Amino acid sequence: MKQNYKMVLAYDGSRYYGWEHQPNTDLTIQGKLESVLSQMTGKDVEVIGAGRTDAGVHAKGMVANVHLETDKTEAEILEYLNHYLPEDICVMDLRACSDRFHSRYNALGKTYCYTCYVGDKKPVFTRRFVYIPEQKPDVERMRKAAEYLIGTHDFASFCGNPKMKKSTVRRVDSIRIEQKGGYLNLTYHGTGFLQYMVRILTGTLLEVGFGLRTPESMEELLEAKSRLLAGFTAPAKGLCLMEVDYE
Amino acid sequence: MKQNYKMVLAYDGSRYYGWEHQPNTDLTIQGKLESVLSQMTGKDVEVIGAGRTDAGVHAKGMVANVHLETDKTEAEILEYLNHYLPEDICVMDLRACSDRFHSRYNALGKTYCYTCYVGDKKPVFTRRFVYIPEQKPDVERMRKAAEYLIGTHDFASFCGNPKMKKSTVRRVDSIRIEQKGGYLNLTYHGTGFLQYMVRILTGTLLEVGFGLRTPESMEELLEAKSRLLAGFTAPAKGLCLMEVDYE
Repeated sequence: MKQNYKMVLAYDGSRYYGWEHQPNTDLTIQGKLESVLSQMTGKDVEVIGAGRTDAGVHAKGMVANVHLETDKTEAEILEYLNHYLPEDICVMDLRACSDRFHSRYNALGKTYCYTCYVGDKKPVFTRRFVYIPEQKPDVERMRKAAEYLIGTHDFASFCGNPKMKKSTVRRVDSIRIEQKGGYLNLTYHGTGFLQYMVRILTGTLLEVGFGLRTPESMEELLEAKSRLLAGFTAPAKGLCLMEVDYE
Repeated sequence: MKQNYKMVLAYDGSRYYGWEHQPNTDLTIQGKLESVLSQMTGKDVEVIGAGRTDAGVHAKGMVANVHLETDKTEAEILEYLNHYLPEDICVMDLRACSDRFHSRYNALGKTYCYTCYVGDKKPVFTRRFVYIPEQKPDVERMRKAAEYLIGTHDFASFCGNPKMKKSTVRRVDSIRIEQKGGYLNLTYHGTGFLQYMVRILTGTLLEVGFGLRTPESMEELLEAKSRLLAGFTAPAKGLCLMEVDYE
């Protein structure tokens, strides 16, 4: 009898080609998890993730589920995973859950945090997890621009996949922009995000902060539905998936 | 006319062979600093450090001084250094100082912090800066043992250099042992430390915490003056030079 398990994961994505398996490499988060669980059960295992983080993106609260046939307790599976997974992937929590739980289909919302370093000194100890813009952005302008992005919109201008055939309508509930010490955190909450969407939103908001765009121009940008008109894609290393919401 | 400058440095020591130049590698902190300053002034430059951190050891408050002939202001030198130094070395502060200031001879005390991770989960984002002991130590026992080490003693048992010919007497003013979240910080303050001394003290205190030694045995250990009787040398990556004191 298979049992479904829900896991919460933290990982430093620096050396991975993202969440999803890729041909010709074992450097994916999904691949590492499946390989350890296959070794544990002696069977092929499919780990379902709440979403796919891109190459170089980190997570503190990624959620995944997996159906396993095993005699081990939850605590034993958790220990086994953390023992055999590399030191940059950690299973923070693992619990048996309903067979019907699907980490992607049942996800109601996600929180992402994008961290820029805007201090005077170099962030020697956190440099792998922050993006250092070349200029200091005006945070107030960024906040004004962010207000235009809140709500349900067609985010086609902020979609990194040019071949996207499905709807590009998403709801962004909040964008919190806070400076603490030299760190500028942009925290996004929404029902779902398109490919590269958080990074393109961040790059565009930074361009507003640099004075290259006006906060008001966000309105036209949404209407234009053209990726070519939005800002740069902020680098992966500043992005972290913080939380996935379920009922 | 040469001017003497005092610098405060932070670095992630992970990929370096320590502070001091080494033949056949440019991967030393001193070497990186001298090479950037030589490039800036067009002359050979000697950077004097308050001490020599070992390979893999980090710093948040290393102090160094250097005599330079330059037309640049303090702010310009600081900017030049941070621009050309690699991203894992940062000059936090740089000021002109008296010609007679010598970062090593004038140092009155040093603070080192050794960080162990003793939490349940893997420290995915801080793993390069902590040591993870295989057992959970009893912190109260470690604190009791540390009391025996405070004061002026011959620390020959805690000296990693078997050929040490000079005095191995040092004064340790305080050892603070604090647990915060999953992190166990051992903060040492003293007038000076022998080679590997902080790491051997930490390894020995951990062995007390594991129940392999008694707190009281520290007394005999100091008297024995034999490195063979002390504990293991805790790994470099947990150690960070926090501060150097001057008048």
